[in-house]
Amino acid sequence: MNQNNELQAVLSHYQQLIESELSVMNWPSKPERLYQPLQYFMSLGGKRMRPVLCILAGELFGADVQKTMPAALALELFHNFTLLHDDIMDKAATRRGQPTVHQKWDENIAILSGDVLFVKAYSLLAMVDTSKLPVLMQVFNRLAREVCEGQQLDMDFQEKAHIQMDEYLEMIRLKTSVLLGGCMEMGALLAGASEKDCQLAYNFGEKLGLAFQIQDDVLDAYGDPEKFGKTVGGDILVNKHTFLRTQAENIADAQTLIALENAYAINEPKAKIEGVKAIFDSLGVVESANAKKQNYFEMALNDLAQVKAFNPKIREQLTSLAYYLIVRES
Amino acid sequence: MNQNNELQAVLSHYQQLIESELSVMNWPSKPERLYQPLQYFMSLGGKRMRPVLCILAGELFGADVQKTMPAALALELFHNFTLLHDDIMDKAATRRGQPTVHQKWDENIAILSGDVLFVKAYSLLAMVDTSKLPVLMQVFNRLAREVCEGQQLDMDFQEKAHIQMDEYLEMIRLKTSVLLGGCMEMGALLAGASEKDCQLAYNFGEKLGLAFQIQDDVLDAYGDPEKFGKTVGGDILVNKHTFLRTQAENIADAQTLIALENAYAINEPKAKIEGVKAIFDSLGVVESANAKKQNYFEMALNDLAQVKAFNPKIREQLTSLAYYLIVRES
Repeated sequence: MNQNNELQAVLSHYQQLIESELSVMNWPSKPERLYQPLQYFMSLGGKRMRPVLCILAGELFGADVQKTMPAALALELFHNFTLLHDDIMDKAATRRGQPTVHQKWDENIAILSGDVLFVKAYSLLAMVDTSKLPVLMQVFNRLAREVCEGQQLDMDFQEKAHIQMDEYLEMIRLKTSVLLGGCMEMGALLAGASEKDCQLAYNFGEKLGLAFQIQDDVLDAYGDPEKFGKTVGGDILVNKHTFLRTQAENIADAQTLIALENAYAINEPKAKIEGVKAIFDSLGVVESANAKKQNYFEMALNDLAQVKAFNPKIREQLTSLAYYLIVRES
Repeated sequence: MNQNNELQAVLSHYQQLIESELSVMNWPSKPERLYQPLQYFMSLGGKRMRPVLCILAGELFGADVQKTMPAALALELFHNFTLLHDDIMDKAATRRGQPTVHQKWDENIAILSGDVLFVKAYSLLAMVDTSKLPVLMQVFNRLAREVCEGQQLDMDFQEKAHIQMDEYLEMIRLKTSVLLGGCMEMGALLAGASEKDCQLAYNFGEKLGLAFQIQDDVLDAYGDPEKFGKTVGGDILVNKHTFLRTQAENIADAQTLIALENAYAINEPKAKIEGVKAIFDSLGVVESANAKKQNYFEMALNDLAQVKAFNPKIREQLTSLAYYLIVRES
């Protein structure tokens, strides 16, 4: 509990620092319809977990926050750029309880505001130590490419009846986990950590991301609606290929598979969610998900344990953060 | 004529070199629906004028083509990224006579393929001499931001009845001219040209771009349909705010302005084009456009004449190129 309070204080400290940097960010005032939408989007908040990871990774290997802040902000802006464009592609009406940019303005504005947000991410990245810029550009470009690939795989899934588990895991790795890994890696690189430590830092973030995404899939169907903050069963209603659905389809016998398909075909929302979850329960897919999540979680902690930390205190904080993100409820 | 043949040989040489680099570009094979669309788009061709300018600017100040090629390719990819996204925003059905990406695939594919093309542009940029990367990133990011601003201004214009001439000129400067300036500037920077020469090189490209865009507006309404390759009067049909329309609206008396508005309101295409052009003619806007174009053209050549060229032969070629681009017909 004490450790948790300390973690909250650390998170809150860095989150405030990041918010403060974001709030003084020098956006041009014109054209209004280009810059207002992205300032709106950036103001919707979020946990700012990516820049926090980048800053903590820097501190883990001895770089102070001034050294990592430009890259940390670049990562947060990049993340928001992907959300802004994903919202168009997914036809999402809201983001963090507020209208998405393409809803509040229009699709063209959302495309172009996203593009210029992406440019701004690179502008911030260009402010790191010049000696580190070439390698950071390589890492950042790799991440950006992989995140786009993950989004494409996710869209491809919408046109497929069934997904193999390895395809599913590769999709979430690219779409959400590599960026968390990259946040850690970039912080480590800026601190001048060894190649091995940079790789371990990356692995910690990536595995943590995989565990988090699987947990997110479970919470979407089984979470406490008040704590989770989204409609329970939303993924089921839109027939999303989640860990649960993929696992169910991969282990079900022919008869159960037909029953699952029938359940997904139900029109009435409540009955559909209940029907699908009944089959999930009969197949024990939540237990499989929790086991897989636990597995990634332990791999993440194991990688973190191996780094040659300049500041072991930060390793403890990253460990607490991992527990905070993953064991929150399941 | 001899000079023109020599220019053609130089252009053709560099165009082939660029096509060859583009054709061996290492695109991942998967996800197919991410990479096929952008390979398709890149294969639609074009004059590759931006990378040619970058390479020539490098040679003007003594950098060989190996030194400028990564940046030249980054600029060409960036240009294509903007076209890909602009085509979505403009709801364009064709590009260079072929279906646009959002037509051949869909909008989501076009958004995401564009995004990853933009990432690839930065990946190429990251391959320049590391000592030059920080300053090149600054220039490239500035250009990218300005091009987005120009596209937004152009979209804003669609919702306005009248445009002031200075607004119009600022829009085309941002949307098309700064990138041509930036191509020259980046070539000069890579060659280690002085700050003053980099600025002059930029100015040459920007002013040439302004002259070219005004010429393009004139040709759209008055060009030889066979040479121009587009439907004559296309801009008039979609009520586009061009130099001609803006100039007409800015100099017309109240009565002529009403006549112009009435002409733009005609439904029948042929009558609309003829009606609008009759008023353009009465106001002498083509002459104004040609005078303005000539003015920018001379500024461009004047800037080019001032650079301390390492290789004066290249200055001649850039001068020939400017004449080739601008005096082609009017």
